[in-house]
Amino acid sequence: MPNSESIDLQKLAESIKTFDGTSRKGPIASVSETFKDVADAYGGCVADFGDDAAAIDIGNGDVILFAADGIWGRLIEKSPWWAGFTSVIVNINDIAAMGGRPLAMVDVVSSTDADTFKEIFKGMAEGIKKFGVPVVGGHTHPEGEKSLSVAIVGIAKKDHIIRSDSAKPGDVVIYAIDLNGRTGPNSPYSFESVSMKTPEQIRKMYEAPQIIGQKQLATAGKDISNPGIIGTLGMLCETSGVGARVRLAEIVMPKDSENSEITIERWCLMHPGTGFVFTATAENAGECIRVLEEGGMTAAVCGEMTADQKVIIDNGLETAVVFDFEKDKITGIQKSAE
Amino acid sequence: MPNSESIDLQKLAESIKTFDGTSRKGPIASVSETFKDVADAYGGCVADFGDDAAAIDIGNGDVILFAADGIWGRLIEKSPWWAGFTSVIVNINDIAAMGGRPLAMVDVVSSTDADTFKEIFKGMAEGIKKFGVPVVGGHTHPEGEKSLSVAIVGIAKKDHIIRSDSAKPGDVVIYAIDLNGRTGPNSPYSFESVSMKTPEQIRKMYEAPQIIGQKQLATAGKDISNPGIIGTLGMLCETSGVGARVRLAEIVMPKDSENSEITIERWCLMHPGTGFVFTATAENAGECIRVLEEGGMTAAVCGEMTADQKVIIDNGLETAVVFDFEKDKITGIQKSAE
Repeated sequence: MPNSESIDLQKLAESIKTFDGTSRKGPIASVSETFKDVADAYGGCVADFGDDAAAIDIGNGDVILFAADGIWGRLIEKSPWWAGFTSVIVNINDIAAMGGRPLAMVDVVSSTDADTFKEIFKGMAEGIKKFGVPVVGGHTHPEGEKSLSVAIVGIAKKDHIIRSDSAKPGDVVIYAIDLNGRTGPNSPYSFESVSMKTPEQIRKMYEAPQIIGQKQLATAGKDISNPGIIGTLGMLCETSGVGARVRLAEIVMPKDSENSEITIERWCLMHPGTGFVFTATAENAGECIRVLEEGGMTAAVCGEMTADQKVIIDNGLETAVVFDFEKDKITGIQKSAE
Repeated sequence: MPNSESIDLQKLAESIKTFDGTSRKGPIASVSETFKDVADAYGGCVADFGDDAAAIDIGNGDVILFAADGIWGRLIEKSPWWAGFTSVIVNINDIAAMGGRPLAMVDVVSSTDADTFKEIFKGMAEGIKKFGVPVVGGHTHPEGEKSLSVAIVGIAKKDHIIRSDSAKPGDVVIYAIDLNGRTGPNSPYSFESVSMKTPEQIRKMYEAPQIIGQKQLATAGKDISNPGIIGTLGMLCETSGVGARVRLAEIVMPKDSENSEITIERWCLMHPGTGFVFTATAENAGECIRVLEEGGMTAAVCGEMTADQKVIIDNGLETAVVFDFEKDKITGIQKSAE
C-alpha cells in the first residue's frame, strides 16, 4: 500500500494531465472530426473512434475487431527488437481490452538498413510466439525514416464486447495489472511483464478479459496505454461522458523489492505491459476480480464512477482534479447522445 | 492495338525486370523467412505472404481478408491529399483482387505538421466516399517523418477467394483494367481512373471481381500494383510456380487521344488505379471477361500460362524473357510443395 497521504496531489494531478503520453492523444479528435461527415453514411460499425478497437458487425452474431498501432520512431531508434516486440503487445492489448480473441496481425515497416528490419522482425516473432497470434502479411519500405505500424484483427460475439463508452455513474473502478515485471529497458515509464513469461502463462492471462466479456462482468474497459493508469481511465471517462474518483492507496502497484524505486507518482505515468481498467457494477466486481486474478493479474477496486465528468484523485486526506471534461480534452471524443 | 513489332523487346524486358516498383518487392521474401519458423505453428490461415491479402478462416464458411499497405514517403511529400486518396485505393484493390467484399480500414499516420494530417485525411475521406468503406480507427504520431500506413479487412466465402498461387499451365492470362483515366498527377507511372468517377460507377466496377470469385471463374488473380502489368503477372507466376507468355499487342491499354503519350513500353511499367490480372481456364475466359467488362473495365485475353517458370513477352516477331524463376526472384515467395 503506498503511503499516499504524503503525496503532493496537485503536482501529481498536473503531471498526469500534461504527461507526454496523454497529450499525444490530442490528434485523435481531429482525425475523428475529419471523417465525421462520411462515417455516418456507413452502417455495420458498432464501436469506432474512442474505443480500443473498432467492432464490425458481420451479421451472424459475431463482430470483427480491428485496431492499429504505430510505434514511436524514437523507440525503434533505441531498440528495434523491443519496438517489434512491443508492437505485438500493444495490438494484442487492443483486442483483449474489447474482450475479443486476437486472430492475426499485418505490419508496415520502413527502414533503410537490413539490420533494423531483422531486429524488428525478431522482436515481433518473439511476441508472436508468446501470444500465439500470427503476422499474416504486410508491406516493407526499404527507404525513409524508421517506422513500424501494426494492425490486428480479432473476433468476439457482438453481445460480449467490452466498450470504452459505456461506464455508468455508480460503477466501481477496477485496475487489473500484471505486476510480475520490471521497469522496461528503454523507458522509465514502461513496465515490462511479458518477455519473462512462458507462452502458457501469457495465453492464460489474456483469456481473462475474454471471460469478462463472455460473462458480461464489466460495464466498460480499456487497456492501459501511454497515458498511464489515470490517463487511460480519463479517456474511458471522457468517451463515456462520466467522471471517476480514485483512491491512490488502493491502486494495484508493484510492491516487491526489485521494483522499490517505483513510486505511486511514477506508477501513475507508467505503461504496464499487461494492464486494464474495467468498470463494473458493485455486484459483479468480486467475480470480475476473481477472473482477472485467476488469469495471473493483480486486480482491485480503487474507486467509483461519478456523474460529474471530473477525474479526481484522493490520497485519503485531500483530493485533486486531474481532468475536468467541462473544459479539458484528452481525445475530445465523446459518446454521441442516445 | 500497339504497333508491337517495332518494340525493342530486350530493352523492355530489362526495364520491367529492373524497374524500381518491382525491385522494391525484394524484402518480402526476407520478411516471410523471418516468420517462417513461427508461422507454421498457427493454423487457421488459408493464404498469407505472397497473396494480396491474408485469408483467415473463421470457421463458418467465411474467411476474413486482411491486408496492409504503406504509402511511399516521397508521395506524401509531393501531395498528402493524393497519398491519402491512394492509400484507400491500394487497400481496396488488395481485397478486390481476392474476390472479397471490403469492410473497413484503419490507419497509422505520422507528421509533425497539422496541414499534412488534414490533407491526408481529406484524401482518405474522398476515397471513403467513392468506395463506401469506412475508416474505423487508427493511430496518429505528431512527430517523425511523414508516413502513412493503412490496413483493411474484408470478408468472403472461403470457397470463393481468388488466390495468387493457384494458376496452372494452360490457363489463359486476362488483364482487366479501367482505361477511362489519365496519367496520375504525381508520377508518370501511375494511371488514375478513380477520382473522376461517381461512387456508383466505382462500386459497380468493384463488384465485378466479387462476382468472378462467387462464380469461380478465375483460377488465380492479383491486382496490378507498383511492379506494373508484367511485373504483377510475374509475381503471380512466381507464387504459382509457373510461367507465362504474353502477346504485347493484345494487352489492354488506353487508346484515346488524351492518353496518346502512353506507349506500350511505358504502359508495361504503369500502375493502373483499377487493374487486375486474372488467370482462367480457356472455357471460363469469355464469361470472366464479360463480368469484368460489365463492371466497366476493359478486359481481354493476352497470353497463356506455361509450365516453364519463365515470363516471356512476344511482339509477334520475336520473344524476350523478362523473368526466369530458375534464377530470378521478385518476392522469392513460392507456393509450398503440396
